[in-house]
Amino acid sequence: MRYLFLLAVLASSSVAFAEDPLPSWNDGPVKSSIIDFVECATSDGCSKYVPQNERIAVFDNDGCLWSEQPAYFQLFFAIDRVKEMAKDHPEWKTTQPFQAVLENDMQALIASGKKGLLQLVMATHAGMTTDEFSSIVRDWLKTARHPKTSKPYTEMVYQPMLEVLTYLRANGFKTFIVSGGGIDFLRVWAEDVYGVPPEQVVGSSVKVKYEERDGQPVLVRLPEIDFIDDKEGKPVGINSHIGRQPIAAFGNSDGDFQMLKWTGRNPDTLKVLVHHTDAEREYAYDRKSHIGRLDKALDYAREHDWTVIDMKADWKRIYPPVAP
Amino acid sequence: MRYLFLLAVLASSSVAFAEDPLPSWNDGPVKSSIIDFVECATSDGCSKYVPQNERIAVFDNDGCLWSEQPAYFQLFFAIDRVKEMAKDHPEWKTTQPFQAVLENDMQALIASGKKGLLQLVMATHAGMTTDEFSSIVRDWLKTARHPKTSKPYTEMVYQPMLEVLTYLRANGFKTFIVSGGGIDFLRVWAEDVYGVPPEQVVGSSVKVKYEERDGQPVLVRLPEIDFIDDKEGKPVGINSHIGRQPIAAFGNSDGDFQMLKWTGRNPDTLKVLVHHTDAEREYAYDRKSHIGRLDKALDYAREHDWTVIDMKADWKRIYPPVAP
Repeated sequence: MRYLFLLAVLASSSVAFAEDPLPSWNDGPVKSSIIDFVECATSDGCSKYVPQNERIAVFDNDGCLWSEQPAYFQLFFAIDRVKEMAKDHPEWKTTQPFQAVLENDMQALIASGKKGLLQLVMATHAGMTTDEFSSIVRDWLKTARHPKTSKPYTEMVYQPMLEVLTYLRANGFKTFIVSGGGIDFLRVWAEDVYGVPPEQVVGSSVKVKYEERDGQPVLVRLPEIDFIDDKEGKPVGINSHIGRQPIAAFGNSDGDFQMLKWTGRNPDTLKVLVHHTDAEREYAYDRKSHIGRLDKALDYAREHDWTVIDMKADWKRIYPPVAP
Repeated sequence: MRYLFLLAVLASSSVAFAEDPLPSWNDGPVKSSIIDFVECATSDGCSKYVPQNERIAVFDNDGCLWSEQPAYFQLFFAIDRVKEMAKDHPEWKTTQPFQAVLENDMQALIASGKKGLLQLVMATHAGMTTDEFSSIVRDWLKTARHPKTSKPYTEMVYQPMLEVLTYLRANGFKTFIVSGGGIDFLRVWAEDVYGVPPEQVVGSSVKVKYEERDGQPVLVRLPEIDFIDDKEGKPVGINSHIGRQPIAAFGNSDGDFQMLKWTGRNPDTLKVLVHHTDAEREYAYDRKSHIGRLDKALDYAREHDWTVIDMKADWKRIYPPVAP
């Protein structure tokens, strides 16, 4: 069994890699558009050549690098935290949206709307130091499991996209995450899982305050939104954290539309959408989904010759192989 | 003459560099503290060894990497801009703080206080797109000259600090600027002058808004402060943009005090203050200066064994050699 697993790993990564930088991708126009772009961007003399210091690639996270169904994984984190913290908050038994969480009443949770969601996020993501928050996320990841696959969330990353990250970096690109999710939530695991260091993660954030406690500096997370890195916020986040134009952008929803348009200011750039078409191996959803809705960006992509990944057709596998 | 210049460059950089990574530094405990730190941080097995991905060094800019007297150079930029824009603003002739600028009345400008300064910054740093602002700064740098030295401002960078930046990067460090100055002002020239790319610049900022003009996305700079990257703001900026603890921090004023303390949470880190002691070759100022005041941080540094650079004693030269 272990021997078979090793063979699978070798076949899908190391050995094949020397010839094919994207072994989990089926051959076709999508795979070619990525490889052609990288080969020209890195070949001095090619029409779309880009010096190494300007090779910036940005990736959405939820639904682009890992799954996002049946709900954003960070929401599961918030739900698990509420349950864990409930013993110190007896009032939550009769207060929404906490009551909904404690009673596993998703209908009532959804009914609490954006305001409810914000309350949930603030109760679980603020009120502690930055170090404490990182520890909480790290501990949660060790035991939390996805409701459908029973996998650790960090194993529900897309193997074909891991290959793109590696391929771009091998070609002198700096890879950034630009996510609507929490910047400090992502930073805990993005380096281990994606090879993206904390300084290359852009995301939504709460305000943070410097304090000294017994002479020791700490940063305290406040229950107040600092920045929402979504839709029009994504180019703003890119400007703030990166300060130059990406030459490649990967997204999967209308929340990434402005980021891809911003990247497309220069027509020689690569704009890619992950289209979730694989109900069997992952999920199939687009225009009508509450999570990761892909509607306007999909039409625009087709009109403007952006690359649209058909997960079912273009990807040989979804998740990385796992030791049996 | 040119021959002599070439000899000087060779002597002070290329040739000597092979033996001495900091040729513009006089030998002594300050120079040794930097070299000892780097050698241990990069030697597996040494007590203060740090893996390469965690080698983050942060540098203040004004008074640490370039001069800041008789006023922050970015203030000269704002003043020059007001004079240039005045023809479209006849009302400025009788409105403070603009009148003060147009009449070269520094007393009245200082009297306008923080509120006046903010008005000056907003009038000159907002109301245009991010691209337009970068062009304005780039154009200004080409012709602007320092009132005392008549040098271009970007030639008033400290040669010994350039050597530290290069030395750290050669040893696998990522070097970041963490400045109270404007992030988008710095990003225009930091890569050329310091080798620090835009994505490694942290600074103060105005709010920015995404818009589409004739279908083309732009980011518009708004006359509203987004973030002040000074004092308690510096650890907050580091947390936001870098997301991990620096292991080396360089500053020169009480504005850098919290950044150095934050870095010092781990005692194995390097904390360095540039003390301006050289009235002849640069400027001498500390506790009583309106610009770059160094008072509490200096006392703390001496009590806690931080490295304090005595510019006059420790630096062989201040600015880089310039072709005659």
